[in-house]
Amino acid sequence: MAEHRPHVVILGGGFAGLTCARALRGAPVRITLVDRSNHHLFQPLLYQVATASLSPAEIASPIRSILRRQSNVQVWLGEVEDVDVERRSVRLRDGALSYDYLVVATGATHAYFGHDEWAPHAPGLKTVDDALEIRRRFLLAFEAAEREADPAARRRLLTFVIVGGGPTGVELAGAMAEIARQVMPRDFRSIDTTTTRILLLEGGPRILGAYPPVLSEQARRQLERLGVEVRTGALVTGIEPVEVRIGEERIEAGNVFWAAGVAASPLGARLGAPLDRAGRVRVEADLSLPGRPEVFVAGDLAAVEEDGAPVPGVAPAAMQMGRHVARTIRRDLEGRAREPFRYFDKGNLATIGRAAAVAEIAGLRLSGLVAWLVWVFVHILYLIGFRNRLLVLIQWAWAYLTYQRGIRLITGQPELNLRRARPPEAEIAASG
Amino acid sequence: MAEHRPHVVILGGGFAGLTCARALRGAPVRITLVDRSNHHLFQPLLYQVATASLSPAEIASPIRSILRRQSNVQVWLGEVEDVDVERRSVRLRDGALSYDYLVVATGATHAYFGHDEWAPHAPGLKTVDDALEIRRRFLLAFEAAEREADPAARRRLLTFVIVGGGPTGVELAGAMAEIARQVMPRDFRSIDTTTTRILLLEGGPRILGAYPPVLSEQARRQLERLGVEVRTGALVTGIEPVEVRIGEERIEAGNVFWAAGVAASPLGARLGAPLDRAGRVRVEADLSLPGRPEVFVAGDLAAVEEDGAPVPGVAPAAMQMGRHVARTIRRDLEGRAREPFRYFDKGNLATIGRAAAVAEIAGLRLSGLVAWLVWVFVHILYLIGFRNRLLVLIQWAWAYLTYQRGIRLITGQPELNLRRARPPEAEIAASG
Repeated sequence: MAEHRPHVVILGGGFAGLTCARALRGAPVRITLVDRSNHHLFQPLLYQVATASLSPAEIASPIRSILRRQSNVQVWLGEVEDVDVERRSVRLRDGALSYDYLVVATGATHAYFGHDEWAPHAPGLKTVDDALEIRRRFLLAFEAAEREADPAARRRLLTFVIVGGGPTGVELAGAMAEIARQVMPRDFRSIDTTTTRILLLEGGPRILGAYPPVLSEQARRQLERLGVEVRTGALVTGIEPVEVRIGEERIEAGNVFWAAGVAASPLGARLGAPLDRAGRVRVEADLSLPGRPEVFVAGDLAAVEEDGAPVPGVAPAAMQMGRHVARTIRRDLEGRAREPFRYFDKGNLATIGRAAAVAEIAGLRLSGLVAWLVWVFVHILYLIGFRNRLLVLIQWAWAYLTYQRGIRLITGQPELNLRRARPPEAEIAASG
Repeated sequence: MAEHRPHVVILGGGFAGLTCARALRGAPVRITLVDRSNHHLFQPLLYQVATASLSPAEIASPIRSILRRQSNVQVWLGEVEDVDVERRSVRLRDGALSYDYLVVATGATHAYFGHDEWAPHAPGLKTVDDALEIRRRFLLAFEAAEREADPAARRRLLTFVIVGGGPTGVELAGAMAEIARQVMPRDFRSIDTTTTRILLLEGGPRILGAYPPVLSEQARRQLERLGVEVRTGALVTGIEPVEVRIGEERIEAGNVFWAAGVAASPLGARLGAPLDRAGRVRVEADLSLPGRPEVFVAGDLAAVEEDGAPVPGVAPAAMQMGRHVARTIRRDLEGRAREPFRYFDKGNLATIGRAAAVAEIAGLRLSGLVAWLVWVFVHILYLIGFRNRLLVLIQWAWAYLTYQRGIRLITGQPELNLRRARPPEAEIAASG
């Protein structure tokens, strides 16, 4: 059927890829969207899954459900291994696809600045599975502390370090502090969870470095009010199972979470185009590959500048790029000239626990409850297309009214041994 | 504090253990409840997690949250390795506990009738992780079929066998048929999911063998209306990656799920008491161990008879046993004589997809929509204590009204390769 229609292959079902596919609705093309996971993820709320405030299903939706009414799209679950731009074909781990147009929107993942050996001790937050792993470690630490007799070991278990003071680190630290200090105390008998130490380490001079300095300062104050120790200019030089090093200083911490670096998807390097320092692909003004007008890069993987400043790796930018690529393909098919991509900056938002946030929207700087309400509104708005919008609202209202965080499930532990959460030299707590 | 109070150690936070702990509220004892997972699971709805209709958090609740207002309970996350009834102590994988009273309520797990080699090809359904694994395989099969070019391989991928015609097998088969035939068709382009084959194999002469024959027959008819092939007298003799054998007959099936046998927790054999054929512990009339009045066995692990018939391994029975043990401990402490356990049979219920079920309550036999409404009512009732009761109701109402099953997330796939879901000889589908 309609084999003469150009075949558009979209790699990645994130904000850029999904928006591109949807913007091609009704266009005379056939689309294959490939993603390694079966769901589109509302990543801005992923930290709430990591802190057990939302269930995965509340922020993730199967891609093929989202696109089920769009008849020109086929969704493939598959892992892309390579792209051959000469032969116009994509190699999957278990198959292959040829294309007329290619949209590479495989995004970014977390990176350890050349210290991949830190990965097992400091998990990052990009996928649902990442979030469930962080949740598991966070909750298990309290379980182990409840059974720990040695005060020093207990202290260590109740110390959490978050590396990286961008929005993810800030939101993670705020949510963890809030849960430990306001929600958990009633649940435990032996430990006082209000003594939990949460450290947020930022290598640069301030947290939320991409935001105006005023908001960074307000975010810091709001975090400190929640009991988070914010340390700037703190460049991590080592991470071991129960220790973080900052130069000569050593911090004993049972758990370290990574929110510091992102690296572009390695697929970018397979396209034969120049990359920037972060591995992102330098594209033309219309987001196409230099010399390859049939290949586009969109979202976090694309290095795009607007008025001399880089377009940030945020969801609204990715959606705008996806939409632009779709528009360009339509113009091609109609024989009209291409137009350059223009980024429209909608502002910045970060939330810091219950009813506290910082925001910069259209030049307006907000903080505290007002910013938080804006944050809730914007996120509910963006969840459009998610069946679960209403459920998430109810969930939030419930958590807000009852001060409860109910979804504290630990899953995915084939072998349970709390000793693994403790340093090797620690004693076994025996109690009768 | 109150170290002279007797120490009651409860092993297992299922229906029996949790009910026992709650029934000891305010009693002059200190309780330690040990479970290998941090949550109590509403197991009767676990098949809905396996079929992606509910999220884990909607049927599981952290044990320590449930018990947080009961000050005489301490919850320990830990895996029990052994019990020494002589020394009155419990050995955990990473610690130890001594007791004055012990309540063993570690339940049952699925068993493969001495064919443990079937386990990797036919996962069972007892824990949240089991349910997520079944969901993953069920959903991945459709993803692989969507990309499969060879009709025979596609057919195989869309054939699911469920072994065991008890309530779990019946509910799983009904839910899977419904999803494949009524919910999924719109989502796929290459495959027709209404051609999905679901076989329910039962070794005995009828499904739901513990129910009255009339209900078995009605359940069979309701399943067949949903498109399930029900086969009784079908004793499975072999399970390979893509094949099930019944004697000489071979059925090609991409996925097999196990709902056939249960075996008592191996801890039962460590108590030094006689066991029945299923490995359950033969207890005294008061549920205590013969010659060990301070040790009780409750729930699925206890072999109890009522009027010559075994008490079934269902949630109401487990809760009644847990309550009885608590009452017995209280009577001991008050110097009153013990009483024998009496089982009150509340009836039987099994659901078969949307708005269809069979029920036997107080001698009354129901089927179809009426039975289904009873089923919904009873389950909502039992979810009492679960914060999520309201959310589950909303979720069900939503699914009922929209005919949608939204939570079709695949998680926990470290390496994606759909070829693994196919038999070794199958070709790689390459499409352009």
